[in-house]
Amino acid sequence: MSSHLGQIFRISTYGESHGGAVGVVVDGCPPRLALEAADVQRDLDRRRPGQSRLTTPRQEDDEVEILSGVFEGQTLGTPIGMMVRNRDARPSAYEDMRDVYRPSHADYTTEAKYGIRNWQGGGRASARETIGRVAAGAIARKLLAQALGVEVVGFVSQVHEVDAKVDAETVSLEQVEASLVRCPDAAASDQMIERIDAARERGDSLGGVVTCVARGVPPGLGEPVFHKLEADLAHGLLSLPASKGFEIGSGFAGARMTGIEHNDPFVPGEGGRPRTASNHSGGIQGGISNGEAIHLRVAFKPTATITQEQDTVNRDGEATRLAARGRHDPCVLPRAVPMVEAMVCLVLVDHWLRQRATDVL
Amino acid sequence: MSSHLGQIFRISTYGESHGGAVGVVVDGCPPRLALEAADVQRDLDRRRPGQSRLTTPRQEDDEVEILSGVFEGQTLGTPIGMMVRNRDARPSAYEDMRDVYRPSHADYTTEAKYGIRNWQGGGRASARETIGRVAAGAIARKLLAQALGVEVVGFVSQVHEVDAKVDAETVSLEQVEASLVRCPDAAASDQMIERIDAARERGDSLGGVVTCVARGVPPGLGEPVFHKLEADLAHGLLSLPASKGFEIGSGFAGARMTGIEHNDPFVPGEGGRPRTASNHSGGIQGGISNGEAIHLRVAFKPTATITQEQDTVNRDGEATRLAARGRHDPCVLPRAVPMVEAMVCLVLVDHWLRQRATDVL
Amino acid sequence: MSSHLGQIFRISTYGESHGGAVGVVVDGCPPRLALEAADVQRDLDRRRPGQSRLTTPRQEDDEVEILSGVFEGQTLGTPIGMMVRNRDARPSAYEDMRDVYRPSHADYTTEAKYGIRNWQGGGRASARETIGRVAAGAIARKLLAQALGVEVVGFVSQVHEVDAKVDAETVSLEQVEASLVRCPDAAASDQMIERIDAARERGDSLGGVVTCVARGVPPGLGEPVFHKLEADLAHGLLSLPASKGFEIGSGFAGARMTGIEHNDPFVPGEGGRPRTASNHSGGIQGGISNGEAIHLRVAFKPTATITQEQDTVNRDGEATRLAARGRHDPCVLPRAVPMVEAMVCLVLVDHWLRQRATDVL
Amino acid sequence: MSSHLGQIFRISTYGESHGGAVGVVVDGCPPRLALEAADVQRDLDRRRPGQSRLTTPRQEDDEVEILSGVFEGQTLGTPIGMMVRNRDARPSAYEDMRDVYRPSHADYTTEAKYGIRNWQGGGRASARETIGRVAAGAIARKLLAQALGVEVVGFVSQVHEVDAKVDAETVSLEQVEASLVRCPDAAASDQMIERIDAARERGDSLGGVVTCVARGVPPGLGEPVFHKLEADLAHGLLSLPASKGFEIGSGFAGARMTGIEHNDPFVPGEGGRPRTASNHSGGIQGGISNGEAIHLRVAFKPTATITQEQDTVNRDGEATRLAARGRHDPCVLPRAVPMVEAMVCLVLVDHWLRQRATDVL
Repeated sequence: MSSHLGQIFRISTYGESHGGAVGVVVDGCPPRLALEAADVQRDLDRRRPGQSRLTTPRQEDDEVEILSGVFEGQTLGTPIGMMVRNRDARPSAYEDMRDVYRPSHADYTTEAKYGIRNWQGGGRASARETIGRVAAGAIARKLLAQALGVEVVGFVSQVHEVDAKVDAETVSLEQVEASLVRCPDAAASDQMIERIDAARERGDSLGGVVTCVARGVPPGLGEPVFHKLEADLAHGLLSLPASKGFEIGSGFAGARMTGIEHNDPFVPGEGGRPRTASNHSGGIQGGISNGEAIHLRVAFKPTATITQEQDTVNRDGEATRLAARGRHDPCVLPRAVPMVEAMVCLVLVDHWLRQRATDVL
Repeated sequence: MSSHLGQIFRISTYGESHGGAVGVVVDGCPPRLALEAADVQRDLDRRRPGQSRLTTPRQEDDEVEILSGVFEGQTLGTPIGMMVRNRDARPSAYEDMRDVYRPSHADYTTEAKYGIRNWQGGGRASARETIGRVAAGAIARKLLAQALGVEVVGFVSQVHEVDAKVDAETVSLEQVEASLVRCPDAAASDQMIERIDAARERGDSLGGVVTCVARGVPPGLGEPVFHKLEADLAHGLLSLPASKGFEIGSGFAGARMTGIEHNDPFVPGEGGRPRTASNHSGGIQGGISNGEAIHLRVAFKPTATITQEQDTVNRDGEATRLAARGRHDPCVLPRAVPMVEAMVCLVLVDHWLRQRATDVL
Repeated sequence: MSSHLGQIFRISTYGESHGGAVGVVVDGCPPRLALEAADVQRDLDRRRPGQSRLTTPRQEDDEVEILSGVFEGQTLGTPIGMMVRNRDARPSAYEDMRDVYRPSHADYTTEAKYGIRNWQGGGRASARETIGRVAAGAIARKLLAQALGVEVVGFVSQVHEVDAKVDAETVSLEQVEASLVRCPDAAASDQMIERIDAARERGDSLGGVVTCVARGVPPGLGEPVFHKLEADLAHGLLSLPASKGFEIGSGFAGARMTGIEHNDPFVPGEGGRPRTASNHSGGIQGGISNGEAIHLRVAFKPTATITQEQDTVNRDGEATRLAARGRHDPCVLPRAVPMVEAMVCLVLVDHWLRQRATDVL
Repeated sequence: MSSHLGQIFRISTYGESHGGAVGVVVDGCPPRLALEAADVQRDLDRRRPGQSRLTTPRQEDDEVEILSGVFEGQTLGTPIGMMVRNRDARPSAYEDMRDVYRPSHADYTTEAKYGIRNWQGGGRASARETIGRVAAGAIARKLLAQALGVEVVGFVSQVHEVDAKVDAETVSLEQVEASLVRCPDAAASDQMIERIDAARERGDSLGGVVTCVARGVPPGLGEPVFHKLEADLAHGLLSLPASKGFEIGSGFAGARMTGIEHNDPFVPGEGGRPRTASNHSGGIQGGISNGEAIHLRVAFKPTATITQEQDTVNRDGEATRLAARGRHDPCVLPRAVPMVEAMVCLVLVDHWLRQRATDVL
């Protein structure tokens, strides 16, 4: 059950970082959506390694092949199989890690769980697994845009101690992509890049925060109890590698507020639809979207792979030292942006289809 | 699908705040666990209204009836039906809200979704719904304790701007319960109580944070991709009413750290099991428990019900003013503690049973 | 997972035959369906014991209580909890069976699975569990009738070697209910009743077949692979106690036909919709409804409870003899009719809601 | 949700008959099972077209590629991606069917459901989709054999009006494979082949029955209510293309018996385990396996594709005539045997893993 997500728009991913391929099956996509590989490739290119000097030098084109579910440029309503071959795998780079657990990686826990581990890379725990999510998310994004006019934009709002100032209500994909680090605040972007370069040079890594906004979500998505929209969003986002925290709307800052400050007063809106004068709720009230923009933030830890030598133990439980080799990102934030957007799109599209199912007769 | 949680230990809840009853069906509990109503009542009593002057004066005994699944003091392996009648319902107190949306409540979104709303209280969005979770969580807690020696302890670590200092590695249920506000730091507890009293007097409300620790969780629980243990925990916790944020281990603070600071070095442990010298991971690496204590934090917003008059709109989309009546908590934190613990127990027990299913042959 | 059915219209049942209550939670019912207890009671009365001299004399009113999900006579879109108390339980009648396995009952397999058994009756394996199904099925039936004009009618088409002649295209509920044995062929009905009376007198029991037809099902329900409509129907029907076989359309007789005989030629129908000249397909082609009436048949074995003495073993594995006591039906067929209808309604309504979710944009 | 099966051992298939590939993702397979492509290829070779003169002449090697989930010859516990390319696709052969609905095929219902259809072959409704099932079933078979000693053997017991006599308790795979039509009764086999040849020559097709036995299934698999073992078997088998009926144990014949005849008396067995003197139950009682061999039968209709001209309608709803072209089997029975076995293995392995999850503590 590890590799399924969604109730209606349901995806199943497979693949290790150094096996034959990674892929995804998207089940439950409505028929007759115009779709071609290029729609998916666009987001995969934003995710792929080697796209800038800030990211891992691993060379992967990550070219997607659509194996099924599309006919004459339209979805059939049947499962959409998509696959990306692993090409630039260098298992020998991992030979050292065969018997040694990298600190704050999944090496030890994978063995504790399964009694076996593909030590030639991160295996299933590799960020390479997110290819399937981003590919599926691209389809979800297209559906949401076309059917509902929803727009999902993520950006890097913090790297280490550099905080960006961005107006989430208006920020555009173009503004985000104009920055190497995907931070649309130019001054902050420059500082972030500087810090990332410095971290790489000293064999260190940095954490940060991705903020994401979904605009145009209609009221009524989400369910009142276990599948509150923010609960499913939190689930999706915390399933991304290296994520450590999630906030919706006011988040942890809201815990320091009083009700008078925090409540979002309703005001009359267009067409009789209530709007809120503030948006501490982050677009969701009682687990259900209220039509305002959905705001969320995801904290990512610094990359666990660092080249400075660290204390660790081997498979026999003996103390040893390890300096990582292998190719990696000194800061996952820039590449995390399309992953965050993908998860948000996947959760939203699933809730939209669920709502269609049980909508008022 | 709104009201189901879990894959193996699967619960289904039902009930509105002012209907006949609230309840839960627990499916997938292994047979031959000693169980009686008192095991469940203990946690329900920690959750129930009217337990202290800090909580809503609504008078509900919340006495649970076990309807099925238990025979001669043992679970049968069949679904355990549990029910609590609603007794002290006062729908008339809500008459004002029939046509007016309370700010930052689920009134508007419920109508946007369903086209109908039980306006006699919070309906399905009421915190009363958590009775089923706490009842089911009590069974999960007992299973975890008995089978694995797991201990789950939550406490209030922040109310408004009062932060408590608590050693999560050693804190006990008794220490928590000794405080009216469930904060085991006596000085902070006093300040919190003072602030809550003041907020109630001025018709305001306060937010805060619950910290929860799970000790004794064996390595190997959780799955590497969509059902990372922290993802399912985030899901469970963000499904609680009024929650706005979730952190595992270092959380948002981790996003301001470097890899050298954040990585948890492995050190040899007892019986050859690796331990970590620090615990920024919060007991989970790559989505799988590593045997260290699991640490998480949940932010709760200030209660939306306040008695000061606020701007809002009515069902016709016209501006109006509303001063809440009805009984409520000026701060949900004390009663949120057993809810947080319940969700943690429910997620952990489900992952433990899942691991049993696919464990190495 | 034992006690859940459905993907969107999802039901969870609970309860043993001799515990406190049996019940069901219906999740995923669309809002604003007019619903009151009488809608549900009607089908429960057709299912209940003691309704005629052909059925077990156990006296149960089986009066349903709706605990949640309905407000001012309409569904809220939230889970509908329904419960029926067990009243005429006589556990002492089962004292003999405490340590002895009744042949062709679930006594032995229940213990093999769970290591424990509520020996005071059939426990979870009792046909009493079907109360929840019939109650949920009544809601499904109402939804289908109102939204789609679907009509589901079942009848007894065979008892032992008595075969009825019934025109399934036109048979009505009233015709079925006019027969004590629920067989709308009057001559066959009389013979069936005679045989059932004879079987009871000699301490024996009889099997038979229920035929069910669903008229007015729109084309397009069902999915092409694992959730073919006939597959989900087969699943639902074979989950009924005592069922041994399932046929859709031509069934096993179809296996003796040639393609030329079996194929259903298309002919032009009203409004341009293709109709079929014959209906060997039973209303489903490639797993998807084609708009013709759905025809299915379910075989039921003779009741396992017989009063003649039989060979068996006890819990210590020793040979012994047993003559059943306890109250029972010498032939389950008459009461099986509402159960079959309920399962058909539950499967159809779920597929209809699924189709709404992913229908063409 | 159309393309998922199983709760723990969960498979997702994808692929049309004339798209790029068909494939399957197997999630939930326990780690450290020895597995190589040859284990899977064996059953695929029994399923593939062109294997004998009785089957379609479509030339497909159906060579499987394992894309993930296996490392150094062992399963990793992660999803196993498997893929088979479509090679001998001849869409032009289907040009006629572009606008005309083939009788008793899924052409019309597919369009009714999705509003679009890959008319170049059967699309998702093609029997080619069963490649993924057979591939996944081969892994399930290996797990069952290794962990429990379970043996699953299917055979053709009827073609048209030719009935075979086979001792299901002892029949072996070798005996089945010795017959071109997979019927281990030599005399019947000869007659069946003769009839199939004759049907092909006259442009007709034949139906029949596959019987399947599972030996060595331990007591305790299956769940007492909706997931009775026979219910899940019926579901799996009726999800196979062209299936029309399902029987467990006595099946429809049981409906003509009395309780005295039908009940299976218990007798003391080895190691204190009760055995039954007869097996009308078919190895399952109350939905749970009792340790006896599981017996089931599946009816298949005659292939819908026949070369004699038939009445039908086109997409505009006008009457027309159609004589099928394209390659096909005049009788699906021989190739249905490995499909039936695959479904039985998939259902059994899933129930075994479910039982592991909630087994007595």
